[in-house]
Amino acid sequence: MEQPCAELIAVGTELLLGSIANTDAQFLSRELAGLGIGVERHTAVGDDPQQLREAVEAARARTPILITTGGLGPTFDDLTKQVVCRVFDLPLTQHLEVLETIRSIYRDILHRPMSENDRLQALLPEGAEIFPNHAGTAPGFAFCSGGVHVLMLPGPPEECRSVWAHGARDYLRRLSPGVIRSRNIMSFGMGESAVEFLLHEKMCRMVNPSLATYAKPSEVCLRATARADTAEEADALLNPVEAEVRAALGDLVYGVDVSGLAELCLQRLKERGLTLACAESCTGGLIAQRITALPGASAVFRGGVVSYWSSVKAGVLGVDPALLETHGAVSAPVAEAMARGARMITGAELAVSVTGVAGPDSDERGNPVGRVFVALADESGGVYCRHLELGSRSRELIRDEAANHALDLLRRHLDGLPMALTVPDDKKGNQY
Amino acid sequence: MEQPCAELIAVGTELLLGSIANTDAQFLSRELAGLGIGVERHTAVGDDPQQLREAVEAARARTPILITTGGLGPTFDDLTKQVVCRVFDLPLTQHLEVLETIRSIYRDILHRPMSENDRLQALLPEGAEIFPNHAGTAPGFAFCSGGVHVLMLPGPPEECRSVWAHGARDYLRRLSPGVIRSRNIMSFGMGESAVEFLLHEKMCRMVNPSLATYAKPSEVCLRATARADTAEEADALLNPVEAEVRAALGDLVYGVDVSGLAELCLQRLKERGLTLACAESCTGGLIAQRITALPGASAVFRGGVVSYWSSVKAGVLGVDPALLETHGAVSAPVAEAMARGARMITGAELAVSVTGVAGPDSDERGNPVGRVFVALADESGGVYCRHLELGSRSRELIRDEAANHALDLLRRHLDGLPMALTVPDDKKGNQY
Repeated sequence: MEQPCAELIAVGTELLLGSIANTDAQFLSRELAGLGIGVERHTAVGDDPQQLREAVEAARARTPILITTGGLGPTFDDLTKQVVCRVFDLPLTQHLEVLETIRSIYRDILHRPMSENDRLQALLPEGAEIFPNHAGTAPGFAFCSGGVHVLMLPGPPEECRSVWAHGARDYLRRLSPGVIRSRNIMSFGMGESAVEFLLHEKMCRMVNPSLATYAKPSEVCLRATARADTAEEADALLNPVEAEVRAALGDLVYGVDVSGLAELCLQRLKERGLTLACAESCTGGLIAQRITALPGASAVFRGGVVSYWSSVKAGVLGVDPALLETHGAVSAPVAEAMARGARMITGAELAVSVTGVAGPDSDERGNPVGRVFVALADESGGVYCRHLELGSRSRELIRDEAANHALDLLRRHLDGLPMALTVPDDKKGNQY
Repeated sequence: MEQPCAELIAVGTELLLGSIANTDAQFLSRELAGLGIGVERHTAVGDDPQQLREAVEAARARTPILITTGGLGPTFDDLTKQVVCRVFDLPLTQHLEVLETIRSIYRDILHRPMSENDRLQALLPEGAEIFPNHAGTAPGFAFCSGGVHVLMLPGPPEECRSVWAHGARDYLRRLSPGVIRSRNIMSFGMGESAVEFLLHEKMCRMVNPSLATYAKPSEVCLRATARADTAEEADALLNPVEAEVRAALGDLVYGVDVSGLAELCLQRLKERGLTLACAESCTGGLIAQRITALPGASAVFRGGVVSYWSSVKAGVLGVDPALLETHGAVSAPVAEAMARGARMITGAELAVSVTGVAGPDSDERGNPVGRVFVALADESGGVYCRHLELGSRSRELIRDEAANHALDLLRRHLDGLPMALTVPDDKKGNQY
């Protein structure tokens, strides 16, 4: 089957200054893949008519679908529409209905008068299909000229997404036969290069479906992607790939199409009717924050303690001061006592804990940066502790990986798996 | 003064699939601005030699500095070097010193044999200047051919940053006269469009220095940028801009060149020799996490409680159950009692608290999504509460904004400012 393809052009000096990342390109690329449209190029230029004209002219000669983001607003540097329409030789005319919508936004929502400049947002090519913007004033729109479909979307991410959902997606759906389906196979416990090393042969020889790794901090997602005429055919291509990955990585694979370990744990806790608490030292609230970021967390997450100082470990979590004195705050006995304490004071069936040295400096007892203990206290009163040496990475990576190890203990317990991480082959992190 | 300019080309199908955002482009653009080098275009293409060749040929004709990211690794789809060097007609040769470095990484750090493929990473153009990679195996390098400086950097963000810091930056510093200096003026309490509306005239008429807004969730950064021959001259251009912004926004400006409210609060607490605790319900650890993400947080942050369930508010923080019964968990009296409780159980001089409805659903007492109470308990035993109605935004935005309001109370207290937010003019959010 023939796959239609597209190019994206983002307009905005803030991109070239590095003030923002081009997240619209990422969002649209994922969405286009889901529609079976391949993206061949991203371009970003500044608010400069000459540079933009060159980019549009070059893209027009290469691609049947051109999508621009940015430069549709009412300010002096919003020039995308004027430039693109000049390239395609389309005059702009005032759309009265759009003008009325914009006027009502200023009147009813922004409570300020509409300026002359604001009226420019209703200047659109004649015959363009309009996509309403529920997050801002400038609508998106599309037209087809000389065999090229041109879609113009606003730049602010929420506005881009709104216009996408309210018309742009449907416009493109009508153009593209077939589907691309992806499956995100999530694993924890092995770095990206090690996963690639293990699956190298498979990844090389596969085109449709394809298999690629991408690393999130301390996790690796294996993304299998298949192109086919129907979703069912695509799924039939993906099933054996998932099976092969599971065979290679064993119980390091924790889920498919789940956003991370926190979401997986939340699902499992709900299924099992159990509740959770946590006690965090070096992760400083990261585990709690990650769980409570998910809607519905309150059904299973009771709460937690960020026991940054030893006095809080003792006073709030009830860790025996003698234990802190003898072993120090960064130790297995203290991690275990923290987990037990969190379970006790909140009444949750399960609790996880973390204590360690996130850096940049080693602690006063000489524990090196990256030494972390994570523990799980379970519903039967048992406790399990994992000792980590995460090396001299950044504070952010150490905290992130420590939080994931705590959640990995939890999911192993909930899934009835061995608590120890058993890495099939190479066990280096994703630094290399 | 003449400003040198550059183009960036990123190579990687994962960018075109939307698996990752092109954060290397953002990082490099910021860094280049700091060196006085303007970026004129970002391009991203897939692991496709033909597409890459076209992009490199076009860029070569336009720009004196070309920087590529990605495609330098040892896997089958890493083709950037081969394609770029063919365009510039430079043969690749085996660099023995680089080969030895890579061999030692495999031997000493990765503990696995180096494959034939891995040797490809030591194939570089003759005479290229090598930039070591302390976060991976493939080095970066630069050469100059036909008047174009070409720098090739690895794609994984940590590797790109490492190679940048270990040679690429210095290579470019030698090429660029003058400097661009930026100043990030941070404000909280007013949406981006309202800030723009207020400063519109100024922002329009300014070129050097320029002034642009960029919104972080619930904060607005005003970035003033000046280009000059020396840092001192650039600073002299920036001083009056900062003064004008401060005059317009009043005490909504909380700092300059500080990463956010959390960092500002941490600095102030250190200066004042005070310690902090927090009690979080709907923010679920976000405040603690944000503070402890900063190195040195342990000097002033004692800890906190994530009291997600009412039973934890009562049992751990000591909130009077009668208060919870009468007013409900989402109420000013409970927010105040939480802050007092956090202060009490940790011994910190100051504590902030948050309780509210982050959504997606209203609570069992009918409190709507976005209703949040944040409170501060201070060193004299006083307590202050702010009532927020954040409307039906996303869970993420509500949590983010609520956390910032709590930190805003703290910084107002520490800076001796009025506790209430007084917005100069329009007070709409950054949706429009």
